[in-house]
Amino acid sequence: MSMYNLGIVKRNVVRADSAAVDKLSRFGVATIHEAMGRTGLMQPYLRPIYPGARVCGTALTVLMHPGDNWMLHVAAEEIRPGDVVVAAVTAECTDGYFGELLATSFLARGARGLVIDAGVRDVKELTAMRFPVWSKAISAQGTVKATLGSVNVPVTCAGALVTPGDVVVADDDGVVVVPTDLAQKTLDAAAVREASEGEKRSRLAAGVLGLDMYKMREPLQKAGLKYID
Amino acid sequence: MSMYNLGIVKRNVVRADSAAVDKLSRFGVATIHEAMGRTGLMQPYLRPIYPGARVCGTALTVLMHPGDNWMLHVAAEEIRPGDVVVAAVTAECTDGYFGELLATSFLARGARGLVIDAGVRDVKELTAMRFPVWSKAISAQGTVKATLGSVNVPVTCAGALVTPGDVVVADDDGVVVVPTDLAQKTLDAAAVREASEGEKRSRLAAGVLGLDMYKMREPLQKAGLKYID
Amino acid sequence: MSMYNLGIVKRNVVRADSAAVDKLSRFGVATIHEAMGRTGLMQPYLRPIYPGARVCGTALTVLMHPGDNWMLHVAAEEIRPGDVVVAAVTAECTDGYFGELLATSFLARGARGLVIDAGVRDVKELTAMRFPVWSKAISAQGTVKATLGSVNVPVTCAGALVTPGDVVVADDDGVVVVPTDLAQKTLDAAAVREASEGEKRSRLAAGVLGLDMYKMREPLQKAGLKYID
Amino acid sequence: MSMYNLGIVKRNVVRADSAAVDKLSRFGVATIHEAMGRTGLMQPYLRPIYPGARVCGTALTVLMHPGDNWMLHVAAEEIRPGDVVVAAVTAECTDGYFGELLATSFLARGARGLVIDAGVRDVKELTAMRFPVWSKAISAQGTVKATLGSVNVPVTCAGALVTPGDVVVADDDGVVVVPTDLAQKTLDAAAVREASEGEKRSRLAAGVLGLDMYKMREPLQKAGLKYID
Amino acid sequence: MSMYNLGIVKRNVVRADSAAVDKLSRFGVATIHEAMGRTGLMQPYLRPIYPGARVCGTALTVLMHPGDNWMLHVAAEEIRPGDVVVAAVTAECTDGYFGELLATSFLARGARGLVIDAGVRDVKELTAMRFPVWSKAISAQGTVKATLGSVNVPVTCAGALVTPGDVVVADDDGVVVVPTDLAQKTLDAAAVREASEGEKRSRLAAGVLGLDMYKMREPLQKAGLKYID
Amino acid sequence: MSMYNLGIVKRNVVRADSAAVDKLSRFGVATIHEAMGRTGLMQPYLRPIYPGARVCGTALTVLMHPGDNWMLHVAAEEIRPGDVVVAAVTAECTDGYFGELLATSFLARGARGLVIDAGVRDVKELTAMRFPVWSKAISAQGTVKATLGSVNVPVTCAGALVTPGDVVVADDDGVVVVPTDLAQKTLDAAAVREASEGEKRSRLAAGVLGLDMYKMREPLQKAGLKYID
Repeated sequence: MSMYNLGIVKRNVVRADSAAVDKLSRFGVATIHEAMGRTGLMQPYLRPIYPGARVCGTALTVLMHPGDNWMLHVAAEEIRPGDVVVAAVTAECTDGYFGELLATSFLARGARGLVIDAGVRDVKELTAMRFPVWSKAISAQGTVKATLGSVNVPVTCAGALVTPGDVVVADDDGVVVVPTDLAQKTLDAAAVREASEGEKRSRLAAGVLGLDMYKMREPLQKAGLKYID
Repeated sequence: MSMYNLGIVKRNVVRADSAAVDKLSRFGVATIHEAMGRTGLMQPYLRPIYPGARVCGTALTVLMHPGDNWMLHVAAEEIRPGDVVVAAVTAECTDGYFGELLATSFLARGARGLVIDAGVRDVKELTAMRFPVWSKAISAQGTVKATLGSVNVPVTCAGALVTPGDVVVADDDGVVVVPTDLAQKTLDAAAVREASEGEKRSRLAAGVLGLDMYKMREPLQKAGLKYID
Repeated sequence: MSMYNLGIVKRNVVRADSAAVDKLSRFGVATIHEAMGRTGLMQPYLRPIYPGARVCGTALTVLMHPGDNWMLHVAAEEIRPGDVVVAAVTAECTDGYFGELLATSFLARGARGLVIDAGVRDVKELTAMRFPVWSKAISAQGTVKATLGSVNVPVTCAGALVTPGDVVVADDDGVVVVPTDLAQKTLDAAAVREASEGEKRSRLAAGVLGLDMYKMREPLQKAGLKYID
Repeated sequence: MSMYNLGIVKRNVVRADSAAVDKLSRFGVATIHEAMGRTGLMQPYLRPIYPGARVCGTALTVLMHPGDNWMLHVAAEEIRPGDVVVAAVTAECTDGYFGELLATSFLARGARGLVIDAGVRDVKELTAMRFPVWSKAISAQGTVKATLGSVNVPVTCAGALVTPGDVVVADDDGVVVVPTDLAQKTLDAAAVREASEGEKRSRLAAGVLGLDMYKMREPLQKAGLKYID
Repeated sequence: MSMYNLGIVKRNVVRADSAAVDKLSRFGVATIHEAMGRTGLMQPYLRPIYPGARVCGTALTVLMHPGDNWMLHVAAEEIRPGDVVVAAVTAECTDGYFGELLATSFLARGARGLVIDAGVRDVKELTAMRFPVWSKAISAQGTVKATLGSVNVPVTCAGALVTPGDVVVADDDGVVVVPTDLAQKTLDAAAVREASEGEKRSRLAAGVLGLDMYKMREPLQKAGLKYID
Repeated sequence: MSMYNLGIVKRNVVRADSAAVDKLSRFGVATIHEAMGRTGLMQPYLRPIYPGARVCGTALTVLMHPGDNWMLHVAAEEIRPGDVVVAAVTAECTDGYFGELLATSFLARGARGLVIDAGVRDVKELTAMRFPVWSKAISAQGTVKATLGSVNVPVTCAGALVTPGDVVVADDDGVVVVPTDLAQKTLDAAAVREASEGEKRSRLAAGVLGLDMYKMREPLQKAGLKYID
């Protein structure tokens, strides 16, 4: 076994509680990110391969070398129903690590989607299958199967730390990671946040100003805002 | 009042004549940009959040600091029907300054759309509302409400100077700004340009070459173009 | 005539055999790129202007200077049915070289699509016409017609060498170039590759693992992969 | 005369007072930018062509088209001793607009430097001459002299609005623009800012913490900061 | 205390053993990264502010919000001699978080350098002080002090996970992070690697080919390499 | 032998005449590029690893896969005194393909420098050796030796086509490629161009305007330039 988390497949990963995952799946990425104190977000260069893509599940992590997708095949065996595969690369790479065949395999194993800090291909087929993917690039560039990486070790993906089993939520606005032990707190905060949104929306739609609804006039005046003609 | 155009809200901005705006709305961005001597265009990194987005209106400008969307709430009160909000930031930033709630408020005040040199979020909801937005990024990253900027001061947005009240036209090809006092001239030039397009299209569709239609053969020969077998 | 391949239009270019083109058109870009030993791909920054765009044809090449689209008009006359226009620029440029009128002309001459290492405009109209375009940018920025380039000389476009008459295949995954004399070999290799895909897909869909199907367990073990609990 | 500020050379531009320019030249870009309420900065992609480059002078503005440097020759005649040439382009472009010969001419006319939202070349020679340049790129790519732009019209350069005659200050940290009528206020605020820096530096060097010097402990505690072991 | 690692300052962090740090400081970043199985590297967009910058020390981590450098002042108090401050931001940001005054304070507290996934300013002064900094950008853009982040929590910086107390090594080639418990193994592997370099260098300098020295001829032939005339 | 130029080493490449190379070495990249009708330039993202780097020699080309530098060792054996190694990669990659040991070997074989469309490392050592390198990135990221590429096949490097034996000239302004059979013509045109530069420089230094020296006043007036007060 190599040191430094390379050449390792961790098998018995504790996933976030499925009830918590189900509840988190009702919220959007922006809401969850705010509920977490504006943390946990991956960088915005990760984009869904089709509009409306959406996923919520438990992270199965993969660490790979540039231009080498061998570990995605190793990962397939570790997938449990409800997992979202989160694939990180040890250096910047836009090659197409993932396509239709791997997606077919992942689906058969119960995966809900893929978040990858690299490129993917067969996007027409993936879109037809409605297999949701967030990636850094779309590229037909193939990869080799030559060097060991790891499965289910902690990885940093697009700037966010992902521990195997964490909850991953992704939609058109991006990807957010909720650590397992914070899932309940995040749920509570998200629920509070969303509870008030309906009423706010109605009031704003009726022409009420945020200035009044959020009581901003006084702090703005204090900060020195001047209205001129 | 702070100096340097910070902390100011200008209230009685003269908007471009609504008849001129209506007439300009019939032209595409490329046509208007050409009619202006190939000037007035924002940089192409601003992209619509959904295909087919299109807007034409009078600029209500907002100047903000990185990561701080406070002034969008101040701007909401200043919106008049027909306005397009043009939001600039004093430094590069991709955070999500704008989402569904602000869009609801802007719509209620009569705004026709948003052009922002930063990020936005809730793009699924904004798309469902058909609220047209051109932005530099899509990001769930939230912002704070801590520092004063300004409303209705001249701003530079994605490389273009925008004076409050200017006409802003945006479509799939980008965003162009027409200064108020040039609206009529631009209209005239755009109309001339477009008048001849229908006939040109028919001729080209019939197989006539641009080489002949635009009489390019002589200047090409003069420039030294050589045909070889 | 200028030296260095400038100011030249080559007329009698031998195109790849149309039967080979037809056969290649049945394969995706990723498959062809793999069949070529993972070569021939243009860089992934070239993107189709609408999802599902797809083209296969013979390359008619154009070499232009930054901000100058004069040679596209010269190229129109050289188009033969089945051609895909491949446009390169001598320096980085995102200007909108191509729009609806040129597309109308190209279509009338029998062109199947455009691959351009620069920007295009009128993307709404091009999309409505279903004229497939792969470009580096979408920009309303107009160009001039002032300096000679060339038509049907070898060019490098988005990192790939294109010789006039080569087969160009493009889809959602990118753009690949098949040299004329390698078309048959590539066809054979692509066919072999695809023949086995259907069966692989069925097996993976049934839950068989790539680890077993591709006999990866032994090489992984040899490489030192360790499973831990 | 073309409309839209193209094809215009404005001759009698009022420059900022030379005494104010001299005084501003003693401050760094960061200090001036802060003194202006954190405004006026060009985007950080503009970089000096050699470390330690530094300039302060009055803006002579140039507006050009992509790939066309004709107006730099027109601008040379308008240079007055103490000017810094600020060159903007109507679209993104990295071509080498400026080199040793133009620098020789600019120097002979009394120019102090160049800020250009495009590329330059002959950087070895420019460095040897100690002619300070801030640019977006270094590129040997040549330009044509074919299309009119303007001299001494307001331009937006790297995101900042520059009015002819404004004070431009540039150093290793970037480029800042001080509007003529704000020069005195900016000077005062910069002087206040800098006056306290020496003492602060001494105290910090002696090990005093910013937490104490800026009295941050209370607001941090109020905001909820927790120290844990 | 906020949840999610915000608003926390961890005080008693166990640093990597100083003897191990001293030994690691003798190796370059490339050697250490190879010794770690090609892992641990930050992304190459982090660049030193002056050529020849070099640092090795224990990580004191800081997590901040975009455009807000408040926590750098909090971090100053936690610095122990030999620390390298590693500053991460919750979203992409190029603002100038750090300058001469903070560097003076950091130096007085015993810091050896700064690695920051954002911008810095006063680079001329920092260079004169020989205070080594690796940053994503150089920008005069100022920041506010308004929102809590954290000190000495695990952060992801430029794609690498950094746990407080880890060894951070940076030079002209980039930045690498060595987890505390792997410091000894990494040292051993780096020493082995470097021990053979002197001899290799001599042989290569004498004209011996890597093909022979590394015994590559057979595997190349096996892989099918063909020499042609 | 693999098809598609992979797995091939071409041995007896005809190099450009050494007298022509010597003469070309006296000109800068910008001059040569202009002498070639503004063609032949690599893209400006290739930058020298130290200021003042300069090289002129005959191209020995290498084609590699992303993250795999095996063929650089194969290339070393093919180097002849006076060669400049030009290394292309089949996909975008910033990994560090080349460092001190390979440079030692290349120097021993008579190589004059390296142009690589990827990353390099050991830049401090390479700078100390004054081994000139132009690269896309500086990165400590290591590579593998697993897949065949080719040596001395035509490649596209940073947007330019390079045929083995071509003349490659590189300096602070970039990299230009002169095809073997155009070397003499280019020399002649460059000599003509440079012959007049000395006199032009003197006149411009004396205050003569380009407007007069290049007789631009009439064409500017014809184009409609207006001087206003």
